[in-house]
Amino acid sequence: MAAEEIHRASTHAPVNIAVIKYWGKRDPKLNLPTNGSISVTLSQDDLRSHTTASCAPSFTGDSLTLNGQAEDISGARTQACLRELRQLRREVEAQDSHAPKLADMKLKIVSENNFPTAAGLASSAAGFAALVRAIAFLYQLPTSPTDLSRIARQGSGSACRSLQGGYVAWNKGEKDDGSDSVAYEVAPASHWPDMRALILVASSDKKDVGSTAGMQQTVASSTLFQHRANEVVPKRMHAMEKAIHDRDFEAFAALSTKDSNNFHACCLDTDPPIFYLNDTSRAAIRLCEMINSRHDRSVCAYTFDAGPNAVVYYLANDEEAVAGYFKALVGDKPGWEGKRGQAIQAAQKSVLAGGEEVAAKLLQTGISRVILTGVGDGPRRVEEHLC
Amino acid sequence: MAAEEIHRASTHAPVNIAVIKYWGKRDPKLNLPTNGSISVTLSQDDLRSHTTASCAPSFTGDSLTLNGQAEDISGARTQACLRELRQLRREVEAQDSHAPKLADMKLKIVSENNFPTAAGLASSAAGFAALVRAIAFLYQLPTSPTDLSRIARQGSGSACRSLQGGYVAWNKGEKDDGSDSVAYEVAPASHWPDMRALILVASSDKKDVGSTAGMQQTVASSTLFQHRANEVVPKRMHAMEKAIHDRDFEAFAALSTKDSNNFHACCLDTDPPIFYLNDTSRAAIRLCEMINSRHDRSVCAYTFDAGPNAVVYYLANDEEAVAGYFKALVGDKPGWEGKRGQAIQAAQKSVLAGGEEVAAKLLQTGISRVILTGVGDGPRRVEEHLC
Repeated sequence: MAAEEIHRASTHAPVNIAVIKYWGKRDPKLNLPTNGSISVTLSQDDLRSHTTASCAPSFTGDSLTLNGQAEDISGARTQACLRELRQLRREVEAQDSHAPKLADMKLKIVSENNFPTAAGLASSAAGFAALVRAIAFLYQLPTSPTDLSRIARQGSGSACRSLQGGYVAWNKGEKDDGSDSVAYEVAPASHWPDMRALILVASSDKKDVGSTAGMQQTVASSTLFQHRANEVVPKRMHAMEKAIHDRDFEAFAALSTKDSNNFHACCLDTDPPIFYLNDTSRAAIRLCEMINSRHDRSVCAYTFDAGPNAVVYYLANDEEAVAGYFKALVGDKPGWEGKRGQAIQAAQKSVLAGGEEVAAKLLQTGISRVILTGVGDGPRRVEEHLC
Repeated sequence: MAAEEIHRASTHAPVNIAVIKYWGKRDPKLNLPTNGSISVTLSQDDLRSHTTASCAPSFTGDSLTLNGQAEDISGARTQACLRELRQLRREVEAQDSHAPKLADMKLKIVSENNFPTAAGLASSAAGFAALVRAIAFLYQLPTSPTDLSRIARQGSGSACRSLQGGYVAWNKGEKDDGSDSVAYEVAPASHWPDMRALILVASSDKKDVGSTAGMQQTVASSTLFQHRANEVVPKRMHAMEKAIHDRDFEAFAALSTKDSNNFHACCLDTDPPIFYLNDTSRAAIRLCEMINSRHDRSVCAYTFDAGPNAVVYYLANDEEAVAGYFKALVGDKPGWEGKRGQAIQAAQKSVLAGGEEVAAKLLQTGISRVILTGVGDGPRRVEEHLC
């Protein structure tokens, strides 16, 4: 009995958190955005999607398993990714007659996130980036990360930014076919390696409208949104690229917080209004303002995706000032138990001023855990296979 | 000993709640707004400022007492009102040599609100309208409400809309001296008398930035605000006037809720962001949406001023549908004990669907009382004097 011919490849892919936000599609089918966006890729040591793609002549159908659950693979978004990747594989096979005919085999994809899918941590971005990257490894495609981003984008818009590390921009693009709506590296993680992120994960609350539906409601009904997309964001894209090139945290902080608030303002201006920020989020914002005010400069910047979790960016030098402050308030929550969390000295609680106490109490009630992480690199090929 | 010559006049003045919001000044000194606004004057049977203005040769200084507390009368805003009213009185005295020389006497103003000043119920609007109206009565000025509105506006912008009953618009005006920035009647209360308002008063919470400072922060820093002021509001002003003329509640509801959300979106887009809506407000919004959805039409409209209180407008015919629904949720709070509140049949709690229960619980925790009221008339002269 011959051993079965199974081909497989595995990857880790990172989460990214935008600092100039993607919200709104000009083409919902191709996931073409109304405006560009910029994100920070977070370290896979902390948050990652781990995906194995395999194919074999014996497989009878494409399949996708996510965190142990069989998922529907027939959706248009996943199918678009598989179709494009198979097409690229066929080009490889056409040029090399010895290359095995993988494009015709069925795919088995198994994926696991090391963070709760429902936590609102851009799991679909990491997930689709990992899916595309794993299959590209399996197919031995020579395709560049930017070209792969065009494919991942069709799975989940923000996934295109998870195919590279460091600081990544997603070009809005002008063409109808989306060929120029791709992600590119603004700077690698090594350019500004001391960027840290503290994620304040909000207690599970019934989530408001999902982002796919929500953003199109905004496009259809907000009277402010087009102004954001056409006037506000383009200027910020340039300014944010410059802030990253210059390692100018003051500018980075001002742009990220303003853009987060601007995006949530457009959500509120949607009909019916969409609320992702809750009282806990608001408290986190106030506390960030208080930290900055106490230090008389921007030591931290907050940003919120389509959910109540605060992502607080700061530089390694300010870890005590920022993470130490939050450790004093929510040091009893899970997330501090690692080596890095333990090394952070909690601030003295006695420093809390009047207004802070109210916010601190809200945070204490509304936060379920924290995640300590920072800027990281792009997808890594791994030899640990999930199937 | 001759009896002392004391002149006095008293008035009640109403609260108004805008449905197209005033936010932002193009001239902070004259309280000239960046955009027009429209409000509903609420019944003085429920909410009112009661003010007595008196003057006498023996008075040695102008004084103002609000709810039993001496207030500073030397502020530029109050002084502007007194100066203009005295100027008009001088014109009266110049034309009638028998008219007593009141303009030269010091003024004693005593004012009482029948609602908590801190409740965020536009107390300054009612207060300044009552102050101006009481002095105008005292001085026997022939001035029209619209001309008085020009004076009251300098005390508190939205006060200009409390000098008339029913449905009142405040013209943005174009002139630098503010002479055309006045309030006018869109329609009297009798035109559409069945407009009701249920106010859900939020439990006292530390208020965010006050409106005077907040609106100028928005003007200075929001990237969306000018678009609101120049593009969004002007169209809504026309549409809202039409909705009122046509007694078209569906249009009235759509415009009020959208404009409230648009205003709060601009607050969120302010740097630093301003939050007036909290989780209780958000719950009230969701419940209003659910009521409308259940009835397949807009039976209610919500609007929020610079605070977390929801003002829910509805028509008398829908009192059971709207007020009865909220009575089922917060019927144990103060505010239902009057004749009208008792007559409202609370809805069956069993009708609550899943999402409603979460919102209902938030409302139960976050609401301290309700106020049942409706559209009402303009300031009334009264003979009950406070001094």
